[in-house]
Amino acid sequence: MADHISIGLMGLGVVGTGVAIAVQEQAETLSQRIGTPVRIERALVRDVRTRREGISEDLSLTENPDDILKNPKIILVIEAMGGEHPAYDYILAAITAGKHVVTANKEVMAKHGPALLQAAADKGVMLRFEASVGGGIPIIGPLLDDLAANDISAVNAIINGTTNYMITRMASEGIDYAAALREAQALGYAEPDSAADVDGTDAAFKLAILASLAFRTIVSDTDVFREGIRRLAPEDFHYAEELGYVIKLLATARRTDGRVLARVHPAFLPASQPLAKVDGVYNAIELEGDLVDWAMFQGPGAGARPTASAILADVVAIGRAIINSAGVPQAPPLDQALVIETLDDLETKYYIRLRASDQPGVMAQVTQVLGDLNVGLASVIQKEVGENGQTAEIVITTHVARESAVQQALTHLMALDSVNEVSNLIRVEERIA
Amino acid sequence: MADHISIGLMGLGVVGTGVAIAVQEQAETLSQRIGTPVRIERALVRDVRTRREGISEDLSLTENPDDILKNPKIILVIEAMGGEHPAYDYILAAITAGKHVVTANKEVMAKHGPALLQAAADKGVMLRFEASVGGGIPIIGPLLDDLAANDISAVNAIINGTTNYMITRMASEGIDYAAALREAQALGYAEPDSAADVDGTDAAFKLAILASLAFRTIVSDTDVFREGIRRLAPEDFHYAEELGYVIKLLATARRTDGRVLARVHPAFLPASQPLAKVDGVYNAIELEGDLVDWAMFQGPGAGARPTASAILADVVAIGRAIINSAGVPQAPPLDQALVIETLDDLETKYYIRLRASDQPGVMAQVTQVLGDLNVGLASVIQKEVGENGQTAEIVITTHVARESAVQQALTHLMALDSVNEVSNLIRVEERIA
Repeated sequence: MADHISIGLMGLGVVGTGVAIAVQEQAETLSQRIGTPVRIERALVRDVRTRREGISEDLSLTENPDDILKNPKIILVIEAMGGEHPAYDYILAAITAGKHVVTANKEVMAKHGPALLQAAADKGVMLRFEASVGGGIPIIGPLLDDLAANDISAVNAIINGTTNYMITRMASEGIDYAAALREAQALGYAEPDSAADVDGTDAAFKLAILASLAFRTIVSDTDVFREGIRRLAPEDFHYAEELGYVIKLLATARRTDGRVLARVHPAFLPASQPLAKVDGVYNAIELEGDLVDWAMFQGPGAGARPTASAILADVVAIGRAIINSAGVPQAPPLDQALVIETLDDLETKYYIRLRASDQPGVMAQVTQVLGDLNVGLASVIQKEVGENGQTAEIVITTHVARESAVQQALTHLMALDSVNEVSNLIRVEERIA
Repeated sequence: MADHISIGLMGLGVVGTGVAIAVQEQAETLSQRIGTPVRIERALVRDVRTRREGISEDLSLTENPDDILKNPKIILVIEAMGGEHPAYDYILAAITAGKHVVTANKEVMAKHGPALLQAAADKGVMLRFEASVGGGIPIIGPLLDDLAANDISAVNAIINGTTNYMITRMASEGIDYAAALREAQALGYAEPDSAADVDGTDAAFKLAILASLAFRTIVSDTDVFREGIRRLAPEDFHYAEELGYVIKLLATARRTDGRVLARVHPAFLPASQPLAKVDGVYNAIELEGDLVDWAMFQGPGAGARPTASAILADVVAIGRAIINSAGVPQAPPLDQALVIETLDDLETKYYIRLRASDQPGVMAQVTQVLGDLNVGLASVIQKEVGENGQTAEIVITTHVARESAVQQALTHLMALDSVNEVSNLIRVEERIA
């Protein structure tokens, strides 16, 4: 074996630069923890002429991926480019060339994780991806190792920092969605194109990864129901507080009797729940297991240094296994029998906010529609709104009901002459540990 | 290798029984996760005739420790007896006999951990102790593996569920210490002899373990300053809330410039901090690292099943290493240069509550004492108390000051004729991540 571990780093954007700097800074720590030094042999960039703040002049740059993928000295590749292609192709090429791989790529792991893990197992190399979910928060290690004696029944998470920041501000300051987005963009928490965050796509990638690992099955990103936060209005936050809840963009997956339902959407959480107390740009992932009951992991879900912390933890794990001459751990067999459910199968409580004419009999009409579909009422609030007092805002929370029945009820409600609009429907999650 | 991993289980109290039941229940899961089945070969008990609810009749009991320690078939010993002796002696004997050991014993690990880990390394066996801190919460794995690329600068924790339950009730219900203790005892959260909990001894054991691992040094339980919760009064909770804080029994250890200070005592935490939001019997451990910034781990800190979750995670890790023919990981060298500080060296903010005669000039006397010792005032509240209005309660919060100066100030305050009593001194921790 060589006297150090040679790494190929693919990508020197925010994450890659964080890794390169951390490898320099923590050289002594990494060497001590692994038992041998690590060195970045080559780094793949778009343009070798770009100057990069904080990175040693000694780092050898290249624009040619083959300088890493076909370099026999490099035994470990860190993929820090993001996006599906060409990141996926490079990861597969690295595995095929017999190199261990560490990636931070949620999109690749959500879409191709099971196939890549199988390829790695076939080739006898390790593919690790702690940084793909929850930034610096240890979650994949705890899930696979520290909770290994548990059968995991649910993952409940806040795994998009941008939207959690926005939601926290909407709740605490009473500002609307547009103002919260502007704030998040001004602070650099939201990209100019924020669609992947606010529409739940980013969270769905991460949930697909977590659910696949937790339930030892294949949950792909397209299996995850997603609904973003664009419809959340100040009124919703007001009623949530009045009713003892906190609104969060919840990413949750639950296994029940051989079925798995994975979904990302705004939810009312009881204010006393640990997950409801996670504010600002932070992330938190809660796991429910048959022995532990629950455990929650919280911290910075993004950022160059926290992400580097997770990537380098994977590098340390692979480095130790190399030093230790440990065999590559076998992936446990997948539970092929699990069925992916659609949202129609969901049974939970609901919050419905609508506007109707403020006339006698309207409440009776509204509640009858729900009653006819066996959607039981838990609470009803009616308030006059508008300048002339001719419009009423009606806020209903239901007992546990079936999503398909609730959706049908909404269709019927919207068809009522007396109902002006159904302003929002938000799922109420009482059973989160 | 045999076709299964043979375990010797020492102790069938609450924890041991939880392990035995979990091994039965999770037989399939454990076998799948490790790659081979595990079996409890013998279990050491005080009296083999005692019937044990939920444990298979097939479990072979013994009253003789040598049936485990000298049994060549047994390659892994789970110590679940608790207490220093004979647990320590059995663990050492098992290691000396070349057996891997998993223990939940905080007292043994706090007092003898470094020596036992060295003995295990010398013998080429593994000694794991995830369950010794934080019950079912993964913390030692994340600290040593998932945050391995970080230099850890601080551990901040709520690691005694009994006192956290009591404190939560005192804060929410306004009840006093005695009532909170009665409640905790009635619910089975507190032992009839609750001294180890309420005086901070239990938390100090756990903090010694965490600090030793986090800073790669030897922090023994006697190095940890400890002050319990007996002096906390309803007034303290009232003022804490008024000032925007939450009281917690904080276990914290910080490394600064080659020095380590570890302490367990009640503390005012800003109400917005993640650790301040951890309520009830739950535990949480927050780590500060140079890359990750911070990460917090939360969950059930005690209980038979969560503790079994942690013990069996260690069994899985050892089992996988055996299956994988992995060498035993080398313990990294200890940082011998670290100096253990005493509380005199602490610099933090303080809350002081005292009773004085309600006479002109008293406030001037009190503040002068503090000023003379360079203890700066951040806020002062004075309230009339008592029936005849002749006594005043004075509540002071200070800027950052040195513990030794504050203690000296207290001595001077108590010597003032106008001061009836210094009711409480509580440290205010603003810098917790």
